[in-house]
Amino acid sequence: MHIGVKETAEILKDHSKILIITHQSPDGDTLGSGFGLYFALTKLGKKARVICADEISQRYSFLFDGYKDEDFEPDLICAVDVADTKLIGERLKNLHDKVDLCIDHHPSNTEYAKKLYLNSTASATCEIIYGVIKELGVAFDEKTGTCIYTGIATDTGCFRYSNTTPLCHRIAAEMMETGVNISKINTPMFETKSLSRISLEQQALATVEYHFDKKCAMICITREMLETSGADEAELDGISPIPRQIEGVEIGVTMREKQDGSYKISVRTNDDFDASAICAAFGGGGHKKAAGCVINGGMEKAKKVLIEAIGDYLKR
Amino acid sequence: MHIGVKETAEILKDHSKILIITHQSPDGDTLGSGFGLYFALTKLGKKARVICADEISQRYSFLFDGYKDEDFEPDLICAVDVADTKLIGERLKNLHDKVDLCIDHHPSNTEYAKKLYLNSTASATCEIIYGVIKELGVAFDEKTGTCIYTGIATDTGCFRYSNTTPLCHRIAAEMMETGVNISKINTPMFETKSLSRISLEQQALATVEYHFDKKCAMICITREMLETSGADEAELDGISPIPRQIEGVEIGVTMREKQDGSYKISVRTNDDFDASAICAAFGGGGHKKAAGCVINGGMEKAKKVLIEAIGDYLKR
Repeated sequence: MHIGVKETAEILKDHSKILIITHQSPDGDTLGSGFGLYFALTKLGKKARVICADEISQRYSFLFDGYKDEDFEPDLICAVDVADTKLIGERLKNLHDKVDLCIDHHPSNTEYAKKLYLNSTASATCEIIYGVIKELGVAFDEKTGTCIYTGIATDTGCFRYSNTTPLCHRIAAEMMETGVNISKINTPMFETKSLSRISLEQQALATVEYHFDKKCAMICITREMLETSGADEAELDGISPIPRQIEGVEIGVTMREKQDGSYKISVRTNDDFDASAICAAFGGGGHKKAAGCVINGGMEKAKKVLIEAIGDYLKR
Repeated sequence: MHIGVKETAEILKDHSKILIITHQSPDGDTLGSGFGLYFALTKLGKKARVICADEISQRYSFLFDGYKDEDFEPDLICAVDVADTKLIGERLKNLHDKVDLCIDHHPSNTEYAKKLYLNSTASATCEIIYGVIKELGVAFDEKTGTCIYTGIATDTGCFRYSNTTPLCHRIAAEMMETGVNISKINTPMFETKSLSRISLEQQALATVEYHFDKKCAMICITREMLETSGADEAELDGISPIPRQIEGVEIGVTMREKQDGSYKISVRTNDDFDASAICAAFGGGGHKKAAGCVINGGMEKAKKVLIEAIGDYLKR
C-alpha cells in the first residue's frame, strides 16, 4: 500500500524497536538513509539498528561515527533505498517477506513491503528521509546532516548529474548549516581512487582505440588486467564512463573479458546517439545513454563485429 | 578605494558603454562573471563588451550564446575576477592603468583599479556578480543564470571543494529555477577530457611509484610524454592532483621535466602533512596542501633528493 510522509512518520512514531535494512553492495544513498534514520530515531528515544547483507566499507565510516550496534527483537522492519527483495540479499533471506515499511525513490520498486513510501522524482532516497525526519519533528544535527548530504551528493555525482534539482541544493545548504564537514565526505567519495583502480585505469587507457573520425572510442579490459590490478566489480563500473568522456567522442565502448572468454560490452553515448540500439544488434539492451550486451568469440572477433554494428548504426 | 555592492551598482547604472575585462587563460569564473554582467547590462539598455587577452575556448561557448561583439569607446572599464594587472595580459597592456572598477574575490588583489569591490570570502567572483545583478534590479534569466552557475560550479569543483558554502548551493538552486540546463554546463566542464589529456594521463599513471608504506605516490612526466601527447600547460595542471587522490596516499608528487632538463615539482598533501615544508628544502613554497619547487640535475637525482627530503620530513 502506498503511503505519504505523514503516515510514514506516524508508523515510525508508533514503534520503538526499529530494524533498518539497507541494500546489498551498499552505496552512499542507502547507508545515508539508514544511518540518518537511525540517528533521528535514537534522538526520539527509540532503539534502532542498521543492517546490510554485505560488509560496509570503511570508506563510509564517517557516516556511522557514534552508531552503536545492538541486537533486539524488532517491532518494525523498515527497508531504505531497496527497490526489490533480491537487493536485500541472500544472507538476509529470512527478512524478504517481513518488511513492514519501505522508503524508496526507485521507479522500479516492486512494492514488496506492507507499506511503501515511494517518491520516484526524488534524486535520492536521502531526499525523502530528509522530509521524514522533518515530519518526525527531529532537529537536524551534524550526524543526520552528514547522512542526508552524503546520499544526495553520491546519487547526483556531487550535484553534477542531470537528476540534480534545486531542492537537492537547498537541502545541501541546510545540512551544511548543521556543521557538516563536506571535505570529510567528498574526499573519500569523489577524490579517492584505490590502487587497483589506478592500475586498471592506466592499463585500460593504454588500449584506447578511436574509430569513425574519433566519434567512437573503445577500451578493452582483459582477464589479465583484472588479475594484475586486483580491481573488483565496482571499480570496473567506474571505468565504463571513461571512453565517452573523451573530447569529441559520442559513443564510448568498454569491452571486458569474462571468465569464459566472451566479452561483456558497455556502450555509453552522448545525447544524439542511442546506446541501446547498438546493443540490440547483439541481443542486449538498456537505456538510450547506457546499454550493454555480450559478444562471444574472442577479442578480435568481438571488436570487429562491434565496430561493424556501430558503423551500420551511424549510416542509418 | 574599496566599495560595496550598492556603490558598484550605482557606478554601473551611471554609465552606458561598459568594457568588461576578464583575466588571461580565462576560466569559468572570469568568463561567467564577464558574460553574466554583459547580459545584465544589455537588459538595462546599455552597451557592453567582454574582452580577454587570450582566445576563449569553444568549451565555454554555452556562456556566450546570444553575445554580440561590438566595438565602442567605453565610458567605464570594469575588470572581473582579475587580481592583478599582470593577469589582464600583455596584449591589453594599454588598459592596465585604465581600470575604473574591479569586482573580485581574490585576497591577493593588488588594488590596481580606481574602485574595488572585493569580497574575499566569496567562493567565486560570480557569487559577487550575483549580488551586483540583484542590486541592479535585473531579473535573472537562463542566460545570466547559466553564467553565474558556471562560475560558482567551476571555482568549487562542482560544489565538491571546501570553499563551497551554503550560499553557493542556494544561488545554484535559484539559478536552476531560471531554466539553466546544468548538463550543458557540467558535461564540458567536468566530464570531458581532451585526447591529449587522456594520452598524458595514461603515460603518467604508468610511472607511478609508491614510497614510505604507500603514504607517498610519485609520478614523473618527461618532455617526451608532453610531446607525444600534445598536452598543454592547463592539461598538465589537471594531472598534479592525481597522485594524492590514490587511496591511502598522504603526499602526492608530480615531477615534470622542463626544457632545460630540470624538474618542476608539485607536491599535494592531505590534512596532516605540509607540502610547503617539503618544498622549502629546495627553495620552493606555496600553501600547506599544495606547494612547488624546482630541482636540477636530471630525473634520477631529482627523485633521490626529493625522496630523501620527504623521508626527513616524515621523521620530524
